[in-house]
Amino acid sequence: MTAGKKSGARQGATRSGLRSTSGNADFPQASKVRVGLVGVTGYTGMELARLLAAHPFMSLTRATSRSEEGRGLADLHPFLRGTAVGELAISAPDPEDLARACDLVFLAVPHGAAMSLAADLLRRGLRVLDLSADFRLRDKAVYERWYATEHTEPDLLTESVYGLPELHGAELAGARLTANPGCYPTGAVLGLYPVLKNGIAGDSPPIIDAKSGVSGAGREAKVGSLFSEVSDNFKAYSLSTHRHTPEIEQELSRIAGRPLTVSFSPHLLPVNRGILSTIYVDLKNPNMPLRDIRSLYAEAYADHAFVRFLREGALPDLRSVRGSMYCDIGLVKDERNGRLIIVTCIDNMCRGASGQAIAGANLMCGLPSAAGLGLIPLAP
Amino acid sequence: MTAGKKSGARQGATRSGLRSTSGNADFPQASKVRVGLVGVTGYTGMELARLLAAHPFMSLTRATSRSEEGRGLADLHPFLRGTAVGELAISAPDPEDLARACDLVFLAVPHGAAMSLAADLLRRGLRVLDLSADFRLRDKAVYERWYATEHTEPDLLTESVYGLPELHGAELAGARLTANPGCYPTGAVLGLYPVLKNGIAGDSPPIIDAKSGVSGAGREAKVGSLFSEVSDNFKAYSLSTHRHTPEIEQELSRIAGRPLTVSFSPHLLPVNRGILSTIYVDLKNPNMPLRDIRSLYAEAYADHAFVRFLREGALPDLRSVRGSMYCDIGLVKDERNGRLIIVTCIDNMCRGASGQAIAGANLMCGLPSAAGLGLIPLAP
Amino acid sequence: MTAGKKSGARQGATRSGLRSTSGNADFPQASKVRVGLVGVTGYTGMELARLLAAHPFMSLTRATSRSEEGRGLADLHPFLRGTAVGELAISAPDPEDLARACDLVFLAVPHGAAMSLAADLLRRGLRVLDLSADFRLRDKAVYERWYATEHTEPDLLTESVYGLPELHGAELAGARLTANPGCYPTGAVLGLYPVLKNGIAGDSPPIIDAKSGVSGAGREAKVGSLFSEVSDNFKAYSLSTHRHTPEIEQELSRIAGRPLTVSFSPHLLPVNRGILSTIYVDLKNPNMPLRDIRSLYAEAYADHAFVRFLREGALPDLRSVRGSMYCDIGLVKDERNGRLIIVTCIDNMCRGASGQAIAGANLMCGLPSAAGLGLIPLAP
Amino acid sequence: MTAGKKSGARQGATRSGLRSTSGNADFPQASKVRVGLVGVTGYTGMELARLLAAHPFMSLTRATSRSEEGRGLADLHPFLRGTAVGELAISAPDPEDLARACDLVFLAVPHGAAMSLAADLLRRGLRVLDLSADFRLRDKAVYERWYATEHTEPDLLTESVYGLPELHGAELAGARLTANPGCYPTGAVLGLYPVLKNGIAGDSPPIIDAKSGVSGAGREAKVGSLFSEVSDNFKAYSLSTHRHTPEIEQELSRIAGRPLTVSFSPHLLPVNRGILSTIYVDLKNPNMPLRDIRSLYAEAYADHAFVRFLREGALPDLRSVRGSMYCDIGLVKDERNGRLIIVTCIDNMCRGASGQAIAGANLMCGLPSAAGLGLIPLAP
Repeated sequence: MTAGKKSGARQGATRSGLRSTSGNADFPQASKVRVGLVGVTGYTGMELARLLAAHPFMSLTRATSRSEEGRGLADLHPFLRGTAVGELAISAPDPEDLARACDLVFLAVPHGAAMSLAADLLRRGLRVLDLSADFRLRDKAVYERWYATEHTEPDLLTESVYGLPELHGAELAGARLTANPGCYPTGAVLGLYPVLKNGIAGDSPPIIDAKSGVSGAGREAKVGSLFSEVSDNFKAYSLSTHRHTPEIEQELSRIAGRPLTVSFSPHLLPVNRGILSTIYVDLKNPNMPLRDIRSLYAEAYADHAFVRFLREGALPDLRSVRGSMYCDIGLVKDERNGRLIIVTCIDNMCRGASGQAIAGANLMCGLPSAAGLGLIPLAP
Repeated sequence: MTAGKKSGARQGATRSGLRSTSGNADFPQASKVRVGLVGVTGYTGMELARLLAAHPFMSLTRATSRSEEGRGLADLHPFLRGTAVGELAISAPDPEDLARACDLVFLAVPHGAAMSLAADLLRRGLRVLDLSADFRLRDKAVYERWYATEHTEPDLLTESVYGLPELHGAELAGARLTANPGCYPTGAVLGLYPVLKNGIAGDSPPIIDAKSGVSGAGREAKVGSLFSEVSDNFKAYSLSTHRHTPEIEQELSRIAGRPLTVSFSPHLLPVNRGILSTIYVDLKNPNMPLRDIRSLYAEAYADHAFVRFLREGALPDLRSVRGSMYCDIGLVKDERNGRLIIVTCIDNMCRGASGQAIAGANLMCGLPSAAGLGLIPLAP
Repeated sequence: MTAGKKSGARQGATRSGLRSTSGNADFPQASKVRVGLVGVTGYTGMELARLLAAHPFMSLTRATSRSEEGRGLADLHPFLRGTAVGELAISAPDPEDLARACDLVFLAVPHGAAMSLAADLLRRGLRVLDLSADFRLRDKAVYERWYATEHTEPDLLTESVYGLPELHGAELAGARLTANPGCYPTGAVLGLYPVLKNGIAGDSPPIIDAKSGVSGAGREAKVGSLFSEVSDNFKAYSLSTHRHTPEIEQELSRIAGRPLTVSFSPHLLPVNRGILSTIYVDLKNPNMPLRDIRSLYAEAYADHAFVRFLREGALPDLRSVRGSMYCDIGLVKDERNGRLIIVTCIDNMCRGASGQAIAGANLMCGLPSAAGLGLIPLAP
Repeated sequence: MTAGKKSGARQGATRSGLRSTSGNADFPQASKVRVGLVGVTGYTGMELARLLAAHPFMSLTRATSRSEEGRGLADLHPFLRGTAVGELAISAPDPEDLARACDLVFLAVPHGAAMSLAADLLRRGLRVLDLSADFRLRDKAVYERWYATEHTEPDLLTESVYGLPELHGAELAGARLTANPGCYPTGAVLGLYPVLKNGIAGDSPPIIDAKSGVSGAGREAKVGSLFSEVSDNFKAYSLSTHRHTPEIEQELSRIAGRPLTVSFSPHLLPVNRGILSTIYVDLKNPNMPLRDIRSLYAEAYADHAFVRFLREGALPDLRSVRGSMYCDIGLVKDERNGRLIIVTCIDNMCRGASGQAIAGANLMCGLPSAAGLGLIPLAP
């Protein structure tokens, strides 16, 4: 909350260019897409608010939270002070109210809580971008086994689009319901896509050794996420049992055109944002030159500006994608045993959650997929 | 360096909105201000490049470094991959070349190295925004005592403008030479300005207990800045002897209209960006109500959108200004002894260096002071 | 929990020197002081367990926690795997059982919960070292005002000893009930003691600008202590209202022999352990030479090996005391305005809590105050 | 440097128990092993000094550094203030002087610099524990290829013992020259030893995905190790080309009794200390029950107290070994594809360098291997 600022002052700032990122002559204010955000207290909610605060064609009209109802958004998230989004009052989630005030709703609520709310909003004619896991898995039984929750809206599982823009851009155009990909699957699938699409991997299941920042665990108060548990520390967790495993396998199998398993090993990094995945693949032909493999990657991502395929010898790091939509990919071939090592980096909060949700929502609404996402990474 | 991207791809991304932040219908590309950046390897150089990559009215035409000549800018700073700025080739610094290619030059070189280069560029008709300490102190003798360096361009000391936009906006308009304020002085001066301008402080010298992130020490390889020296550590340094002391005293004395000393105590925080200053002032009238003091702050910054004066009871934190131009200010009155405690937060790299330099350069070139600076803080 | 270790193996390790720190020829095992630890889940409990695992003259016979009853201590705190202490089973707190099994009990429970339990244990003939705030303040009314809790054992307030070994060593010898000092007061009081005892401070209330690591906030699950809230961040909090204020003022007034107030400003550092306090004092005689002030410090701490008074020009840092009992003190005189700046560093978990508790308990039991505390700091 | 401490004070502290860790009735002071430390400025030198400060049977008589000659050790490394070791004056390295003053010398110098110095000291009758890579590889040609340095003392390559105490304890007893294992190889070899010794691995080369804290890069001033390059960041480096690769392969081949290659992938963690290795092995029999594999680990390390083999379901983390000699090992079997995943954690500075060097030196001198190493990990 900024105190004592005359309302004219901010207007002046707008006129003088401060808010230049949110104005755009080609897309008049009146026709902005009205969006709602259900679940604004967590990290994905915070990140959506950050991105919407500067989005040229979207206007945040509702931000909901039961526990914080009535507070100003900038009072809850002080980094938003001084922005128009920050002045929004938080309301309780109410489908009827959302239907009146919004064209599209982002659901940033825990898995299990999203499915019925999504169904309700769809019935009211809204578009829904769900950031939970509820609509990612095509197979009801797989969902129920891994999430230990009954799926009450199985019909929507076939309708929902998996919102990875590089792979599903066409389906996203005009979709009613999008399942935003998980953070780990985003980096893993983008890293393996050129290999599997082109059928150059051997039979051994790929290994995805992934390391994530702590924001991926959410903003829930739990001992395991405390600073003094995580800082100056590092650990592996949920090896071979993490819930993103079936999601990764579903997408990779779809790309490969055959059923595929992986060894997926998540680790917890003492950083705020970012996932680096080190991926090991045995090549069908161990003598395949790196140059030929690189060509497949260059071709696969030639038209996708958010994937940066690095020059030979370069490897990505987290900070070079911090706060942005970029997925950086580096390749190494271990010539001593013919293995391909793929290293990918994303910002788990932006590319791995809220930024990707904006990209999906852009496409659902007929906007350019990169609208509002031209973010330069923050380093250091 | 992004490999294998067809040139058409990036064009496509631009057309589809990815680079929407850098386009603006009101200010045609052809008339962008051409700027140069001397010293691109350090943190202030990196941050200038980040900001210029998205600046709607400035175009980076030269980036210089003797040691990195010939490399691509994105090869040196991989976070810039995929941006137009990142494709610029680093050149050796050459005043003649800079004069041909630029309208204004940012100097991000160590103190001592800036003064003669600035003079040379000014003679060639360029505008100069100097981020070093060389033109901040009005008094040659003070400069030479604190910096142990002869000042070879004393005439320019009177011409140069101290680039704090809230206090010197009028002088900056059209200036030829601007001295960008130091990082610590920025937070200290903005925090004390309303108190000193209104003459409510007592005689006891203010205490500025300041805590800075490590990027303030620069990107030079030195043991004291190594991760394993700084991480999980904290220390005070240069108590009462730091070179920003005379700069703070010069500006505060100017505001107060009387000579003033301070106790300035810098500390080194294990964070990348940010300075928090806790400032202690004895009040002339210890019974002055906090409400009245708050009115002075609200009034002083009513027209300055980059200063966020917090509501009563709120205190700033570093991450709420990370990556942005905001200076957040909170006030506490210690009613038990009549002291005023002012807490200010800035991002030392953005507000405390490169962002403020952009604001100054904007004003020097007749652009809105906030152009290209509508940055939403990155939290977490 | 270490699996699959034959019991003989650990014996062998003991015999071959692994546990040499816990054996001592002069003090036979049979006569070890039997101690209990009530509240083993938090950070002070963890640190007490760490120190007791290597204490030559104390044996941990009970570790209690309602929520973790039945688990092995090393199962809860894996760093204890392989130690004898780690094999202890956690029990529910039961005064009768504690009385049977222990000579002295450490209370590591929240304030308010300690007072009646302490009284009960004292009635049963045990000695009690209380790490909460319940017995620190002499004045019932002051306690009740600052802690908003009724004090039900006011008689014990006069009996309890304030457990700062350098200042209260004589009273601690043989005491029944010791109130372990707060973490912030420890660094503040040790820093100001020579100044106030010798009456060289002026009338202006001292300023204590203190910066603490996050473990000081405890191991309770709360959003404000999450990694992604604290890391790469910094803030001030509870300025002039922190509960350690009356404790600091009580001890300083006792030393000075006159009522004294302070400005106490706590800040939250993104580090695990440590408190650095920057203390500002106006001198009665602003021209008093630093050399003379230094003599007072040297003399005050000449016989106290845990206080390291640094050579002129040196300032302390957190990591140089990490994991140890040291309180490092550096002095600077701001000659430009006659102020004395005192910088102190402690490890808030060891010196500021559990280590100091061990020192107090040592003295209560007739052991050397430094027994089990010869800890070399861990750097980096 | 501690100022103003009367010499009697420290004596008093000793008598009262402060230095109890360094006294031992069974091993009189006079017969302590006199050790020298060549290269005291770096992190391994610091850690050796920390450990020697509390070693009951070793006395540090020389600490050398060309650049710091004449300074007190505690002046260079302030955490040592107040210890006897800290009062030692740093001298220039001089083989003749070392021969007079020492029985054994630790070499903590860069690879290439150790070989001739070791030879010289051995000729003078000293024992040598070399922490560099100079004597780790048996094959001169392999050394010269990976380190791009001529090996001038090839005869010593066959004499030197690889100082992993669990595997080479017998050879270390009485050895003249010990090559201390590299930090990465320590965790990798201990993790794979039971698998390879028992021949249960398949033919596919093991993958070692290792993540190390920054202290492993040494205390040399370089941009890549700066706080602002490493903090809140993470990256892979030297994939398949790191110099520890041939060392790992040499030891694993020796254990397996057949030539073996690995995929070794190091990563840089934003932590001070620690290496976690996630190791992937295909099993010869994919259906081998985890229980049987666990038995092999339990048996292999039954007599080795510094290896903690965790209970089923538990995984190690860095902080649980911080500052200690422990190597923690957890096992997971990915039942979906029959892979074994081994996770190991060590403190790279203690177990991965200086602590292991002490263990080796203990055995070389006929002391118990764990003497001076009964260190409880520091958490958090």
